[in-house]
Amino acid sequence: MATRKYQGRKYKLEAQSSIVDALTVEEALQIDINGKPFTVSMRTPGEDRSLVRGLLHAEGIINDITFIPDIVLKKENEQGIVTVVDLSIPKSKLGEGYANSRSLLSVSSCGVCGKTELSDLAFIGKTIDDEDKLEVAMLEKMFGRMKSKQSDFKQSGGTHAAAAFSLDGTLLCAIEDIGRHNAVDKVVGKLILSDSLKEASVLTVSGRISYEIVVKCFKARIPFLAAVSAPSSLAVDYAKELGITLFAFCRDDRATCYSHPHRIKTDNLNSKAG
Amino acid sequence: MATRKYQGRKYKLEAQSSIVDALTVEEALQIDINGKPFTVSMRTPGEDRSLVRGLLHAEGIINDITFIPDIVLKKENEQGIVTVVDLSIPKSKLGEGYANSRSLLSVSSCGVCGKTELSDLAFIGKTIDDEDKLEVAMLEKMFGRMKSKQSDFKQSGGTHAAAAFSLDGTLLCAIEDIGRHNAVDKVVGKLILSDSLKEASVLTVSGRISYEIVVKCFKARIPFLAAVSAPSSLAVDYAKELGITLFAFCRDDRATCYSHPHRIKTDNLNSKAG
Repeated sequence: MATRKYQGRKYKLEAQSSIVDALTVEEALQIDINGKPFTVSMRTPGEDRSLVRGLLHAEGIINDITFIPDIVLKKENEQGIVTVVDLSIPKSKLGEGYANSRSLLSVSSCGVCGKTELSDLAFIGKTIDDEDKLEVAMLEKMFGRMKSKQSDFKQSGGTHAAAAFSLDGTLLCAIEDIGRHNAVDKVVGKLILSDSLKEASVLTVSGRISYEIVVKCFKARIPFLAAVSAPSSLAVDYAKELGITLFAFCRDDRATCYSHPHRIKTDNLNSKAG
Repeated sequence: MATRKYQGRKYKLEAQSSIVDALTVEEALQIDINGKPFTVSMRTPGEDRSLVRGLLHAEGIINDITFIPDIVLKKENEQGIVTVVDLSIPKSKLGEGYANSRSLLSVSSCGVCGKTELSDLAFIGKTIDDEDKLEVAMLEKMFGRMKSKQSDFKQSGGTHAAAAFSLDGTLLCAIEDIGRHNAVDKVVGKLILSDSLKEASVLTVSGRISYEIVVKCFKARIPFLAAVSAPSSLAVDYAKELGITLFAFCRDDRATCYSHPHRIKTDNLNSKAG
């Protein structure tokens, strides 16, 4: 349940092959307290009771460590993944964290908030239908250019980076931040401030890809998104839905594409059997 | 400004040395809209106007991409880092994201919410004053034991892990999740559910350490926290304040301790000059 198989297309220099990859599952869990929706946590299914009890402790919702509330699994999806739990907690057991619930954010690195149903995305607008094509070999150059700007990472090993490129590989901007979401927001913000967002065709990020980064990329109307590390299951689901060509595991001379490969220039690629 | 120097003590098998390390700076930025506090973002200082403009776009606060609001730097701290910005946005320019602001969470992977002033932590309770001692060599064994449980990571490369150990190296539990905060919540929650939290002396985590993980460790009253990758500046500040012995860069046969090294068994260690 913690991983799920996804189809991809693997590129290595001048060859491509079809593969089926196991991706980490990312699903929303809504936590209700005494029948009222309290928060939504993006998590990998499994150990849900542990997650809920640990979160209640960390956030000061229940300070009495010996008290184990009833945790009722209220709803599951068609795959048997729990989507809503309801907790019965007597008022006398509710700590200061409950009153202060505006500040309760149960986050994974990969997403927050209630906008977790694909159907909720309708309000965002239409799918990206840009038909520009990218040469896979260009990705390696782009990551090289981003890396040359990661001076904070060289010092501290503690920053994420994001960068925007035009289709011909020109670096528009590259920014580091301790938060991967911040790095993306800073890049998109800088492009908006300099009125150059429309020139951006490719967004590259160090590290992993969450569904939230896919949404940020989509809202910026950037058709290509590429990461050094793994995508989550939800990131791939969103990229498919929103019309984004998503690459992950862009390392050395390799890259795996999980969605909308029709935007990749394949004229000069040899195909291998998966 | 993006990195800051911190003192540490580096351990390698049977030797230790003092070092000064550059850590990525993590600081809170409060964003006010029309004079009212709106959200707090944990970020690396720099490109703050880009961050704010990008966030407004991603969250649907301003949908008009040509509109650049006044961004007034309202407050900075003694190091010249901006701590509060105020935006003037006419009502007609405020998008649906503003009305729906309960769901605006501006997060880094490393922390959320307004509890970002060290002084706000007073309510949590007293500093951990546990005097148990740990052999540094034990860390390598613990990370080995945690790694043997990271079966999802082996498949997908997309999960974080956390584990709890007793002082003698016994693995109490190890759990993987797409979110690093979730993995820690699950471990602490599982220990609470099995009434064995008091046996936990060491919390290990894959990846980086944010200040929020330090707070979760503190609330669970676990005196040792150890990570494979880098800590943020705020993580170290919090660990010092809360009485946690924080190790980072625990790789191969090395580890760097950034706070409260008095809990490390040094009888069998040779000291090297920094």
